[in-house]
Amino acid sequence: MEAPCVFCRIIAEQLPAKVIEETNDLLVIQDISPKAPVHWLIMPKKHVADIQGLGEEDTALSASMVLMAKKLSEKLPGKKSFRLVVNNGHEAGQRVFHLHFHFLAGTQMEP
Amino acid sequence: MEAPCVFCRIIAEQLPAKVIEETNDLLVIQDISPKAPVHWLIMPKKHVADIQGLGEEDTALSASMVLMAKKLSEKLPGKKSFRLVVNNGHEAGQRVFHLHFHFLAGTQMEP
Repeated sequence: MEAPCVFCRIIAEQLPAKVIEETNDLLVIQDISPKAPVHWLIMPKKHVADIQGLGEEDTALSASMVLMAKKLSEKLPGKKSFRLVVNNGHEAGQRVFHLHFHFLAGTQMEP
Repeated sequence: MEAPCVFCRIIAEQLPAKVIEETNDLLVIQDISPKAPVHWLIMPKKHVADIQGLGEEDTALSASMVLMAKKLSEKLPGKKSFRLVVNNGHEAGQRVFHLHFHFLAGTQMEP
């Protein structure tokens, strides 16, 4: 049997994670290897490997990931600046093949 | 009078840009200072400053920016990996305050 996706296991509460936000469709967790003072991962609860895996039926889901970033920004102190990053595909640095948006904040970032 | 937003001027065809894709709601242009072999900017035609400027009425627009990345990936050779980045707010490197998603591809990128 193929090992289940690590993010699917977190979503199923078979693996622990620090949950930042949760909706019917999305889970937001703390990155276990943070690259910035704030480093959260926004992911759909249903398994979608990457952006190419989103279909016509995923319009609301696609929007919800972007609008979740707006909601998360309200948790930030000060100017509420953040960077949103999707590493899509192995050559772009994707290592877990369950779609996730990195939400990064808390340091001055170069353009 | 306040100077109009540079991206609004491009959208109004008052300034030149290399257009990669266009829909009713979105324009995709070549970045004039590319950071990767492929560096395109996905932007809404209507003026929205940043992700915080997206409202409840912008669900379809929010989804369309994500799904445009899927469409753009079809133009890439090979493995079709890409990175999607939003620098949201001055401290995150945003310099043009008209929402845009950077679509980057063509080099091996670190995770």
